[in-house]
Amino acid sequence: MVSIAIMGHGVVGSGVAEVLLKNADSIAKKAGDAIEVKRILDLREFPDSPLADRFTKDFNDIVNDSEIRIVVETMGGLHPSYEFVKACLESGKSVVTSNKELVAAKGDELLTIAKSRNLNFLFEASVGGGIPILRPLDQCLAANEVHEIAGILNGTTNFMLTKMIEEDMPFDDALKLAQQLGYAEREPSADVDGHDAARKICILASLAFGRHVFPDQVHTEGIRNVSLEDVKAASLMGGVIKLIGRAKKQGDKISCIVAPMIVKEDENLLAQVRDVFNGIMVRGDVIGDVMFYGRGAGKLPTASAVVADVIDEVKHMKRRKALFWESGAPDYVVPYTEDSTAAMVRLRGVTPAQAEAAFGAVEVLSHEGNVLAVLTPVMKEQTLVEATDSLGDRVISCIRVAE
Amino acid sequence: MVSIAIMGHGVVGSGVAEVLLKNADSIAKKAGDAIEVKRILDLREFPDSPLADRFTKDFNDIVNDSEIRIVVETMGGLHPSYEFVKACLESGKSVVTSNKELVAAKGDELLTIAKSRNLNFLFEASVGGGIPILRPLDQCLAANEVHEIAGILNGTTNFMLTKMIEEDMPFDDALKLAQQLGYAEREPSADVDGHDAARKICILASLAFGRHVFPDQVHTEGIRNVSLEDVKAASLMGGVIKLIGRAKKQGDKISCIVAPMIVKEDENLLAQVRDVFNGIMVRGDVIGDVMFYGRGAGKLPTASAVVADVIDEVKHMKRRKALFWESGAPDYVVPYTEDSTAAMVRLRGVTPAQAEAAFGAVEVLSHEGNVLAVLTPVMKEQTLVEATDSLGDRVISCIRVAE
Repeated sequence: MVSIAIMGHGVVGSGVAEVLLKNADSIAKKAGDAIEVKRILDLREFPDSPLADRFTKDFNDIVNDSEIRIVVETMGGLHPSYEFVKACLESGKSVVTSNKELVAAKGDELLTIAKSRNLNFLFEASVGGGIPILRPLDQCLAANEVHEIAGILNGTTNFMLTKMIEEDMPFDDALKLAQQLGYAEREPSADVDGHDAARKICILASLAFGRHVFPDQVHTEGIRNVSLEDVKAASLMGGVIKLIGRAKKQGDKISCIVAPMIVKEDENLLAQVRDVFNGIMVRGDVIGDVMFYGRGAGKLPTASAVVADVIDEVKHMKRRKALFWESGAPDYVVPYTEDSTAAMVRLRGVTPAQAEAAFGAVEVLSHEGNVLAVLTPVMKEQTLVEATDSLGDRVISCIRVAE
Repeated sequence: MVSIAIMGHGVVGSGVAEVLLKNADSIAKKAGDAIEVKRILDLREFPDSPLADRFTKDFNDIVNDSEIRIVVETMGGLHPSYEFVKACLESGKSVVTSNKELVAAKGDELLTIAKSRNLNFLFEASVGGGIPILRPLDQCLAANEVHEIAGILNGTTNFMLTKMIEEDMPFDDALKLAQQLGYAEREPSADVDGHDAARKICILASLAFGRHVFPDQVHTEGIRNVSLEDVKAASLMGGVIKLIGRAKKQGDKISCIVAPMIVKEDENLLAQVRDVFNGIMVRGDVIGDVMFYGRGAGKLPTASAVVADVIDEVKHMKRRKALFWESGAPDYVVPYTEDSTAAMVRLRGVTPAQAEAAFGAVEVLSHEGNVLAVLTPVMKEQTLVEATDSLGDRVISCIRVAE
């Protein structure tokens, strides 16, 4: 019997307890040992839980209990998750987490502590919910040089964009619906401003390219400014607007961005990832394009990934997984302005000739009344910024086109 | 340094040698040891290969060489692959193969030999080419009860169907083009009659549900009888025709089928898997739907999966992977006639009323001249067979609708 603790009995944490109880027999068979939830840390009371007698409000009941070998962290947020996880590792316990904020901010440090003590710090659930992505990526990486990862990493914004695209629902209504359905928080900034996607692309880029990438190194734009008119103009070029997180190898450095991008329906399977689903495309030198798809969030899918990590840890107790990356560096991520892109630009009171003067050989997508929508050629982001700046408030919107 | 041998220097085998040479440094780093190709078995001569001095025509040079710890089998076919792989395992060497025919026919026996000698028999490349699918499936399985797997498992037929759907290219022309491009063999039966897909769904079903499934237990229909008229009628219900391999849990037994099916574009991401790509959908009780997508064939993608297995084996030398399944049984797979399905039926000289008399409440998709296309309700396969039999040669075609 292996004793574990769960810190945080919210959506994911209660899902982990539920899956461990529901599939206890098959899990014990797969892990080679029964798994007992000995302690659950939460400040709230859960008198009706079948595990009501395991609850504690005191972290010391977990960190000082030498019987507890694995600690699951599903509290979310950075504090006190960081301090608790660090203390658990330092007291000789392996840690499994679903906390993307923690991994994106402190992954390198926690992996280093785990390595030095021959423990594991596992976080499959932190990206893509239940979709197996970090281990397969690690496996893809074995025989490949991965040079790009691009994905729809946030289910809430993908749900909202799907409503905008397929039902002409304005942004504000789509947000309200997402909140009603429990997909978006009352304070939706982490989703709609791209921070959640930024944390996830940091974790993917850190693993794929071997050095830690911090969220503040990622140029991040959310979907607040995407309008139904943008959606319609994108459809004129056979594209849909998706919030894309992307990391690319650039020599010894990388580029990393989160932004709404136009994805062409004919060319890119990410265009077909609808509703709350996530899709992550990995591009390797040998393997070509590989995509992983599934529910990127939700209680049970995420709990499924956490439990898979716990089972893996029980099977490999005292054997370290290879999962590791080096510390980051301020100049490791090149400024986004050095990257190149094409863009769809919507302009008010600008003639095609004036658009061409600003952006080069543009393709006119539509020209209705005094509103012109054009597709620019591929150009340096810096040049694109200068061109839009030169047109001032005549620019209604500017949305990148995914390669 | 770990010495390995490669049996077969065809498309995949030469790709394995190429990847091992090309990415030697990064592979050594990931495996924790350098990997040396000590022997290559092939009856042909390759004087221009950088590994020309490693070639042998004598299997004994491999099986009797105690320095060789891992043998890669990329010969294809059942004989002498089976005898060679068995002999290698029995002489204490782990084996990595891309040979789906071998795994589908002899997987349980070879896994049992490997288990009894504490060796590994690995075959990630046998399904989905370079797409990591078997390990992630194993991982999905850890916390999930998987109840269905359905996929586009053959790139050649998917390429042909894509040409038929998108370019109105008749079957014969699509086949010729596939042959010209090297996707199809001159004798294309393994692809177009569904045998290749049947082998792959056997491997997936064996792993997911824990008992060996043999190709002759799978009801297998190919795409030879799919016409452009079928493609057009399917489009009237928002669907595309794909060759689907599907296995479903049915209590203690399973159902398993390979057949062309209509996949609805709005409902199922498999509809968007185009060209030579493969897509495999896994449905679990906790995780929901997960899809894996990528190039299902080709020299380098397949070689990439073989090399990933070799690296994994070097890292875990003398440690068995969990990969295993039990022997099969004649009554383990239920007859396909006991399963249920809806179907699109095209009929000549039949009125809607007569169609309704035969199939129940049908939906008329089109009625042009004397050709009627209808969508039947979901019914037992046996009932569907009886209904089409009752209409005799007035039935032009009958194609299942995927759920």
